[in-house]
Amino acid sequence: MREVAIVGVGLSRWGEIWDASLRTLWTEAALAALADAGLDRVDSITVGCMAPGLFVGQEHLGALLADDLGLAGVPATRVESACASGGVALRTAFAEVASGLADVVLATGVEKMTDVSGDECTAALATAADAETEVFGGASFPGLYAMMARAHMERYGTTREQLAMVAVKNHRHGALNPRAQYRQEITVEDVLRSPKVASPLNVLDCSPITDGAAAVVLAEMSVAKRLAKGRPVVRITGIGHATDRIALHSRADMTAIPATTKAAERAFAMAGRKPSDVHVVEVHDCFTIAEIIVLESLGFCKPGVGGTLAQSGRSALGGALPVNPSGGLKAKGHPVGATGVGQAVELTTQLRGEAGKRQVTGARVGLAQNMGGTGASTVVTIVEVAS
Amino acid sequence: MREVAIVGVGLSRWGEIWDASLRTLWTEAALAALADAGLDRVDSITVGCMAPGLFVGQEHLGALLADDLGLAGVPATRVESACASGGVALRTAFAEVASGLADVVLATGVEKMTDVSGDECTAALATAADAETEVFGGASFPGLYAMMARAHMERYGTTREQLAMVAVKNHRHGALNPRAQYRQEITVEDVLRSPKVASPLNVLDCSPITDGAAAVVLAEMSVAKRLAKGRPVVRITGIGHATDRIALHSRADMTAIPATTKAAERAFAMAGRKPSDVHVVEVHDCFTIAEIIVLESLGFCKPGVGGTLAQSGRSALGGALPVNPSGGLKAKGHPVGATGVGQAVELTTQLRGEAGKRQVTGARVGLAQNMGGTGASTVVTIVEVAS
Repeated sequence: MREVAIVGVGLSRWGEIWDASLRTLWTEAALAALADAGLDRVDSITVGCMAPGLFVGQEHLGALLADDLGLAGVPATRVESACASGGVALRTAFAEVASGLADVVLATGVEKMTDVSGDECTAALATAADAETEVFGGASFPGLYAMMARAHMERYGTTREQLAMVAVKNHRHGALNPRAQYRQEITVEDVLRSPKVASPLNVLDCSPITDGAAAVVLAEMSVAKRLAKGRPVVRITGIGHATDRIALHSRADMTAIPATTKAAERAFAMAGRKPSDVHVVEVHDCFTIAEIIVLESLGFCKPGVGGTLAQSGRSALGGALPVNPSGGLKAKGHPVGATGVGQAVELTTQLRGEAGKRQVTGARVGLAQNMGGTGASTVVTIVEVAS
Repeated sequence: MREVAIVGVGLSRWGEIWDASLRTLWTEAALAALADAGLDRVDSITVGCMAPGLFVGQEHLGALLADDLGLAGVPATRVESACASGGVALRTAFAEVASGLADVVLATGVEKMTDVSGDECTAALATAADAETEVFGGASFPGLYAMMARAHMERYGTTREQLAMVAVKNHRHGALNPRAQYRQEITVEDVLRSPKVASPLNVLDCSPITDGAAAVVLAEMSVAKRLAKGRPVVRITGIGHATDRIALHSRADMTAIPATTKAAERAFAMAGRKPSDVHVVEVHDCFTIAEIIVLESLGFCKPGVGGTLAQSGRSALGGALPVNPSGGLKAKGHPVGATGVGQAVELTTQLRGEAGKRQVTGARVGLAQNMGGTGASTVVTIVEVAS
């Protein structure tokens, strides 16, 4: 298998962006990544996007976006795996480079979520769950994650305050990230006093609705070395993808996310790494409880003790294992199809030592975890500074 | 790059299927393909589907369908490129096997189109065009292809009857295919007298709305040889993907489909083949004019003479280059996300010599062309009996 590196990264503005359409945001990110790589063309494009048909009445994004970028002609593939669409776009691009079908691929993600009403947005996001057995029964994602939170609290004694501390940490990180949607710090009291969404989760336990796009340029290693111009080459050493029963009620245990464990095992095996080798982590904190469960399922701590990581400061910047230095989905924002690619942008920035005030000192191995639904699909990616 | 072969094929029922849902149809096809391959598991799954969010209120198909098949856990990737989604699913699966990420991949396509009204269906399909500059202006796909037909008639003298002869041929082929949605023969008069849709195209110039799924199992060549058990091994020797300006009015010429030409050039170069090497062809005849233009754009005849191929019998079973022996989209049906994979099922069946009454004698090299929108994306695949 050919070696694959990340040679360029770019983000559009993230937030409630009223003056730009899906294609405009995407092209902002794509141009930024190409400029960062020092390229003006690629062999192929992948686009992670969850539900553009429902959000903006547009499918066929591969052709649309290649055209908007001025690269009509190149192969362009849209992939979807709900909120893991970006991670899958990264893996699909990885396979193209690794196979030799392409030497340079632009791997991207995008979502334009604020052109519909809040109810329509909730309905569109609910298509990540099982329509027949979850959605028709009234389940929404805050409700499903609330059940996971309640189960975790019951089984392990995880506290309401520990949930809040995840949001507090990620807002503190986001305040250091000029690209974050929310840059204000919050307190545990703020979280506890914010409006209830689905008990025990309040508004400040939930990631926001975000418009945004992210892009990375992947290249075969020899091409990457030519393009590096003195900057560290960031190699993708492991990438694992796994699924699970789609409906939460079909799984044996609501307090773990087995697809994340499987995807991590695949990524660690491919990279020849283990959790203790990792210096910086970006995980899919769509809700505060998600970060807690995911860190357990990735093997960074034992089941049941995930709630202590933010509380003790271990997962904060300056701690032993900084998690979501970007601010995570909670503070950086969560344009669902873009999130997985946005994580790769953050890790590359960290491994290059270009993360400014949120820099994780000495970060040379990073891990990203991106998931869809209540964890029915997960992509785990390991990146390393190439020696 | 590792060599990749097709080791199993399967179809669900195709037609207006009122007693089965998207997942049921998909699993029918997947089980048939696994049984044909003699396997009960795969390393990975790809799913081509255009607009399940709009058609049935369900995204996250990778996880949903892996689960329904009993294979929750395996990586499962949904891809979308409008009506070329199936072709892209095939190419994405190809890259996984070629790269070494997987040894055996189930490449599939599915669409459930009849759970919505005709108007809703037309609107869902229109998301393959440019929402901002085509759809908002009132363009629908019959209208866009009608403009292409009118331009071809004006420039080259293609006749109304020549368009009709494409439908007549494909219905004649479909009558020989037990899996076709329409198995009755029609005449040129039937086509000319059928209701007008968008001048010059009548109802019988248009492919139908279809529910259905298709699946093929791809395997690395050494695995494929072990599984063959005396049957011919069908190798994918070339696969090319290309895009174009998405909006028809953005292109220099409405009488050609440049993305098809580019994708074909890539596939022929990869296979070391040329058009005259090909024995059997499946093309994307979503409208009669499409088959005519596509055969020109693939290089099987010069621009402007595509209309004579059905007329002369050259593209019929028994002719020099049989095109759409399956019945094509017109008669076999067009469940949009499944179509590209369905073409691979047909070519594999032909190359194995298992096509019964519609068998193309001596077929050892086949080509499939699958496209999205008015040709803004195309995948061309070349398959050959492995020596």
